[in-house]
Amino acid sequence: MGKLSHLDEQGRAKMVDVSDKDTTSRIAVGRGTIHMRTETLALILDDKIEKGDVFAVARVAGIMAAKKTSELIPMCHPLNITSVEIDLMPRHNPARVEIEAIVRVSGKTGVEMEAMTAVAVAGLTIYDMCKAVDREMSIGEIRLVKKSGGKSGTFIRKE
Amino acid sequence: MGKLSHLDEQGRAKMVDVSDKDTTSRIAVGRGTIHMRTETLALILDDKIEKGDVFAVARVAGIMAAKKTSELIPMCHPLNITSVEIDLMPRHNPARVEIEAIVRVSGKTGVEMEAMTAVAVAGLTIYDMCKAVDREMSIGEIRLVKKSGGKSGTFIRKE
Amino acid sequence: MGKLSHLDEQGRAKMVDVSDKDTTSRIAVGRGTIHMRTETLALILDDKIEKGDVFAVARVAGIMAAKKTSELIPMCHPLNITSVEIDLMPRHNPARVEIEAIVRVSGKTGVEMEAMTAVAVAGLTIYDMCKAVDREMSIGEIRLVKKSGGKSGTFIRKE
Amino acid sequence: MGKLSHLDEQGRAKMVDVSDKDTTSRIAVGRGTIHMRTETLALILDDKIEKGDVFAVARVAGIMAAKKTSELIPMCHPLNITSVEIDLMPRHNPARVEIEAIVRVSGKTGVEMEAMTAVAVAGLTIYDMCKAVDREMSIGEIRLVKKSGGKSGTFIRKE
Amino acid sequence: MGKLSHLDEQGRAKMVDVSDKDTTSRIAVGRGTIHMRTETLALILDDKIEKGDVFAVARVAGIMAAKKTSELIPMCHPLNITSVEIDLMPRHNPARVEIEAIVRVSGKTGVEMEAMTAVAVAGLTIYDMCKAVDREMSIGEIRLVKKSGGKSGTFIRKE
Amino acid sequence: MGKLSHLDEQGRAKMVDVSDKDTTSRIAVGRGTIHMRTETLALILDDKIEKGDVFAVARVAGIMAAKKTSELIPMCHPLNITSVEIDLMPRHNPARVEIEAIVRVSGKTGVEMEAMTAVAVAGLTIYDMCKAVDREMSIGEIRLVKKSGGKSGTFIRKE
Repeated sequence: MGKLSHLDEQGRAKMVDVSDKDTTSRIAVGRGTIHMRTETLALILDDKIEKGDVFAVARVAGIMAAKKTSELIPMCHPLNITSVEIDLMPRHNPARVEIEAIVRVSGKTGVEMEAMTAVAVAGLTIYDMCKAVDREMSIGEIRLVKKSGGKSGTFIRKE
Repeated sequence: MGKLSHLDEQGRAKMVDVSDKDTTSRIAVGRGTIHMRTETLALILDDKIEKGDVFAVARVAGIMAAKKTSELIPMCHPLNITSVEIDLMPRHNPARVEIEAIVRVSGKTGVEMEAMTAVAVAGLTIYDMCKAVDREMSIGEIRLVKKSGGKSGTFIRKE
Repeated sequence: MGKLSHLDEQGRAKMVDVSDKDTTSRIAVGRGTIHMRTETLALILDDKIEKGDVFAVARVAGIMAAKKTSELIPMCHPLNITSVEIDLMPRHNPARVEIEAIVRVSGKTGVEMEAMTAVAVAGLTIYDMCKAVDREMSIGEIRLVKKSGGKSGTFIRKE
Repeated sequence: MGKLSHLDEQGRAKMVDVSDKDTTSRIAVGRGTIHMRTETLALILDDKIEKGDVFAVARVAGIMAAKKTSELIPMCHPLNITSVEIDLMPRHNPARVEIEAIVRVSGKTGVEMEAMTAVAVAGLTIYDMCKAVDREMSIGEIRLVKKSGGKSGTFIRKE
Repeated sequence: MGKLSHLDEQGRAKMVDVSDKDTTSRIAVGRGTIHMRTETLALILDDKIEKGDVFAVARVAGIMAAKKTSELIPMCHPLNITSVEIDLMPRHNPARVEIEAIVRVSGKTGVEMEAMTAVAVAGLTIYDMCKAVDREMSIGEIRLVKKSGGKSGTFIRKE
Repeated sequence: MGKLSHLDEQGRAKMVDVSDKDTTSRIAVGRGTIHMRTETLALILDDKIEKGDVFAVARVAGIMAAKKTSELIPMCHPLNITSVEIDLMPRHNPARVEIEAIVRVSGKTGVEMEAMTAVAVAGLTIYDMCKAVDREMSIGEIRLVKKSGGKSGTFIRKE
């Protein structure tokens, strides 16, 4: 196993120097799930207008959060991301919404953290909008499922 | 089950009006877990300096994220939070770090979202700092474990 | 006519001191209009899903902008606003969308700028989402239509 | 008429993918007007120091807002803008201030929204600084007057 | 000497809990100095319009920075500051500009950091605006000169 | 001596146009010092855990502030910085901590302001974390010690 790249020789946090890395097309895919009561999912899905809006707000929140990643994660590099897509997929038995974020950039470093941050904030937003009816929802399995581009090449998570 | 309070009669998102709620002391406790390989946790724990800093950076990130909650979660009210504490607890078998955030405010609405956002961002920061050695970490079980204060009274999650 | 309250005796900008003002319930209502081609409005309205989302994104943008007002307008005081509502009303002959924002706070100063900023950003967002089909839209008549609360009392714009 | 490019096939908002667009020199010019009472404009113009500062604050606010555009407009791409100029032109009969913003970038997408956001925030700032003497000012005609660069070429608004 | 209040018993950073502190009127005064070449100060002062603007931009930057303090200083509490004034005083022999910031709040904790942050950012802005003619300017003596309000009472720095 | 490059011909502030500058590797080094009582430095240094954290929090704050520079300094261009390092060096007789920030970018303009802003905010954070035991600390000598890259070439401050 290698070194923790965000720590210098004396263990002090620093932003990794990516000055000499190539500018390449990079993509990252993050996923997560918000678990909820069956009635909560039904309430979202049964009222078409309401469903539209809960998911619309969560999608906007996730997209905007991807753009804020370097403000939230201290050692992240600022990047001009070129695309964000958020997909929200309701699932039954057990009731849940699966969240996927796909982020693209042409840059010197990858967008893993942007994809995972978008997933987390979309999930937190669903929680916020539904918490009046279900405080016991939980957000889980936030993970990187794929990345490509850059020197380390393509990564696909074994699932 | 009640209504989704963030949606008005036509299903359009709005920020819930808390103008007439009382200003009371409120507290919320959020928790979550980041799962990792045994070697990743060992790498964090074995090097005392490095452990200090990974956890120190994550703790700072979580505290700062709690203060940014109303910028991230579209329908959240801005609040002058009066305290944030982040606790990071390494656990073995399986290897993981448990994350707890306790947030306090004297205000017209609660700090559930602040506590959960702090947990999520602390977890994402640990992921970011360790991802060079372990891309398969996942962040899960982000949930509200307790809240008190306000009209709806005390909530304790059944765990 | 009085003095420009944001300028001190030597004409230098400063944030007006509201330390000694009372904390009272305040409300402000702002309005504006985005003018567009008939076909642009039809395109928004004919596709129900698309309409939902254009307006949903603009509404979220307006609400989030209200919370950012003191970051955008240099001499504005930070305030913990307690409510924001954005109403988007399509109108024909000529084709346009009327935008209304209602903002509430319990604070030492009013929320006029929050209401007008929400209107402006909701309009800019509609422009952004539709500009691929209509670059000649224009946003106008951004104005304060009502405010109440505070020492200066209720203001209703003559329309 | 084409499609609304910010909506995917199912009408869900997404940030348009500009990964494959060329990096070219782009410029956009936005304009708008703040209408006011004759006495308000005179008050601004008669006191040389005060005029300096009202316009100076509005100009700074507009420049800073151009840099915040991608935080305000949900589907806007972050861009490293290379230049912003704000011109504020007092006009009589009727009394008003015309606002022009010119924004430049070398990037994969244009800066129309940056120019229009700068105009809107400069206008809102003038409103804020003068509202103690004139609450009935209104901001209007916020529009794109020119853009060049990028695949769609030069656009000049018919005025 | 007491304890470092931002560190808990195990030395981990946390935001100090001010939930139980009284809401009182508080004021803080910070000062600092930017040192420059005689020619640089003359260039600022001789051109009246230019002087107006360099100082106007620095003053706006300082005021806006005071409002951003809790985003910059990790353990600072967010506060709704009620007033900020920035005074910029040119001085000769040696050439320099003295910077003073006065910040007020009605809150549970003081505004020392807001005053000092405003001074620092006003100084950095003067540096930025003049660095093309004088890269050797330096900013110094950033300090708290006075604070009052709150349990610890009035502090006046011995100068 | 040249012109103040941030002011146009009529003395109005504008963001300097860097559209036609080359994208080159640039580096800037800023330094500053926070002066304190001997006992304050001892308190930081004697408790190993506490030292770790005070410095760790200041380092994170400095890195995050470098990324926020264009939001703080009105005429600064947004840049995708590729590296930030913060070095904190305790010194005795007199007691102080020297702060150094090294910032790198591949861009059209330099990172002098990013380096100096990182130094200032790291110093302010040390002040914040220790102010309960020493309100008379002062932050000084914030200066640019080196820059390289870009048309103006290498600058090294005479010290």
